[in-house]
Amino acid sequence: MSVTAPAISSFTPPRRTLMGPGPSDVPQRILDAMARPTIGHLDPAFCDMMEQTKSLLRYALRTENKLTFPVSGPGSVGMETCFVNLVEPGDKVIVCVNGVFGGRMLENVKRCGGVPVTVDDAWGRAVDPAKVEAAFAAHPDAKILAFVHAETSTGALSDAAALAAVARRHGALSIMDCVTSLGGTPVMIDAWGIDAAYSGSQKCLSCTPGLSPVTFSEAAIAKVRARRTPVQSWFMDLNLVLGYWSGEGKRTYHHTAPINPLYGLHEALVMLAEEGIDNAWARHRAMHEALKTGLEGMGLTFLVPADERLPQLNSVRLPAGIDDAACRARLLNEFDLEIGAGLGVLAGQIWRIGLMGASASRHNVDYCLKALAAVLGKH
Amino acid sequence: MSVTAPAISSFTPPRRTLMGPGPSDVPQRILDAMARPTIGHLDPAFCDMMEQTKSLLRYALRTENKLTFPVSGPGSVGMETCFVNLVEPGDKVIVCVNGVFGGRMLENVKRCGGVPVTVDDAWGRAVDPAKVEAAFAAHPDAKILAFVHAETSTGALSDAAALAAVARRHGALSIMDCVTSLGGTPVMIDAWGIDAAYSGSQKCLSCTPGLSPVTFSEAAIAKVRARRTPVQSWFMDLNLVLGYWSGEGKRTYHHTAPINPLYGLHEALVMLAEEGIDNAWARHRAMHEALKTGLEGMGLTFLVPADERLPQLNSVRLPAGIDDAACRARLLNEFDLEIGAGLGVLAGQIWRIGLMGASASRHNVDYCLKALAAVLGKH
Repeated sequence: MSVTAPAISSFTPPRRTLMGPGPSDVPQRILDAMARPTIGHLDPAFCDMMEQTKSLLRYALRTENKLTFPVSGPGSVGMETCFVNLVEPGDKVIVCVNGVFGGRMLENVKRCGGVPVTVDDAWGRAVDPAKVEAAFAAHPDAKILAFVHAETSTGALSDAAALAAVARRHGALSIMDCVTSLGGTPVMIDAWGIDAAYSGSQKCLSCTPGLSPVTFSEAAIAKVRARRTPVQSWFMDLNLVLGYWSGEGKRTYHHTAPINPLYGLHEALVMLAEEGIDNAWARHRAMHEALKTGLEGMGLTFLVPADERLPQLNSVRLPAGIDDAACRARLLNEFDLEIGAGLGVLAGQIWRIGLMGASASRHNVDYCLKALAAVLGKH
Repeated sequence: MSVTAPAISSFTPPRRTLMGPGPSDVPQRILDAMARPTIGHLDPAFCDMMEQTKSLLRYALRTENKLTFPVSGPGSVGMETCFVNLVEPGDKVIVCVNGVFGGRMLENVKRCGGVPVTVDDAWGRAVDPAKVEAAFAAHPDAKILAFVHAETSTGALSDAAALAAVARRHGALSIMDCVTSLGGTPVMIDAWGIDAAYSGSQKCLSCTPGLSPVTFSEAAIAKVRARRTPVQSWFMDLNLVLGYWSGEGKRTYHHTAPINPLYGLHEALVMLAEEGIDNAWARHRAMHEALKTGLEGMGLTFLVPADERLPQLNSVRLPAGIDDAACRARLLNEFDLEIGAGLGVLAGQIWRIGLMGASASRHNVDYCLKALAAVLGKH
């Protein structure tokens, strides 16, 4: 063991243009908010900010759910928070898998002792509500339906309203992953009747990664309250977390909230409210159209059929003869541009070009098209 | 549901002096680091910074453990990461409880399906190694010893070297909570033979809350690898997390790391290395002596006996006739000074005055003494 300190100096990151599957470009205004003075997690001023954040999240998620707050961890912790609270050992859960993140839901169900029933769809396609209907017919005792609204690994958008309606018809709760959809394309928790949903801060909200907005319906809370077994995670147990985030009377210390990242999320949500969420959705759609025109003009083709396509995450097939890693390295090194690689079975097959939050701008679309044309020799 | 956006504007926190049990004052240099441009979690520049952070953490923790990294969550997630990986259902675990955080360890053991054996000591006292020895004698099949090095709820410092030695003599692994000790008082992972430890970013490292440094010995990793059952948490499963943090060959995506908070932790650790960890320990000790002299001069008495006292967290009994909440409100509102309340059975009995990281300064000591004298009518 060395007793001398390592000779490591301050880190100055390069300035990138982030057009992968998240994180997206973070506006300076949000970075500045994160650099404001740290205060205590039980400070009355901080508690006021927590209440504002909950209101702003309800606006973004289109819900009146009281239990709407940011989990102190990345989207994966938001996901696990939903599953460990709602799935009890032996509970049958229908899990839709059409990409990496559906697979992760499946893994969560297993680790909670749930009994998963998998509904598979092709990677790059939406979840088929008819298959979900058939799964409930075959498993009428299923208690929960879990699906990904916007599959970050493929860019496919599923019909959340239709899927939640199937679950409701069969008396089941719904858990929805809206990590990549929130803020970029409509997410309507109450109108669709979603019981539990989790998202991430670093996608279309354009904040830094590390926080996961979640929301729970009254029916979901009733299921948590009626559990016969304790929640297997102490940190994620909603019965305990609620004492801190509920805002009803005195706050009870549970864990030390990530103060400065929460300043950043608050600012990101204020910016979304200033723009208006409908306008944000329209901007993402318009930038997608502009990017699509340019990409197709270069002969690139989309993985996902047009009517199942997510505007903010554009998956295109690699042209024949193109070296995936070499091209992305050139984009990064010569253009400071990050785009996403394929994940899982799609590794080496596709690129994922994100237009999320502040990255959904005319400047970014033009810059990305110019850089791609250069590395693909199209100009 | 309202369709209009809530009228909420940017949040400007008050500027406080943080002398509670954490968060501590965060130097502007660390806040500035957090406001640098966000880059991707698989960016080569970010991966280099991750490697540097691991080296800096090894320096701070006095260890050569390869598996040393910051968990993407608050200290409670670091705690749970240790327990869910190391405790298998049926494993007997001796848990030392001398405050709130020992109790939290106990709760973690239960939720992992472990069989806890509790060693109780009074709140405000160190853990008694003789009791731990007796517990192992009574339970020779115990596989793990879990204890809190620095009890944040009381300010008691336990003899970690002695406790780990007891565990080792009985062939058990040790799990240590060093949330409040790291950076403020010696933490010697290798010299003491600790197998797993977790800390927090917001105490004596003076960073913002939200990250939890952890370290695991080879013996701990061997126990994780030899598990007969899967780790119950997907997010905390070291077998998966390692693919991202290991740095051996290609990094595998696991979750999106909290990029900007990690910039902050890196900067905090660079500052610790610049000061020299021995100097940081000496500074905390010297500021404790200065504060103690002043507090005792006002007639305040310490909860913890002198030789079991943590320099960076000073628990003093409330003087007779003093209104706890009213006094702390005056400190906050008139002096912008935060000190900590008592937790659990000590609520209303003590104040916890932190001298952690940047808060362990002559300025803060003098300011705190002046403010306390004013609200206690001692000047």
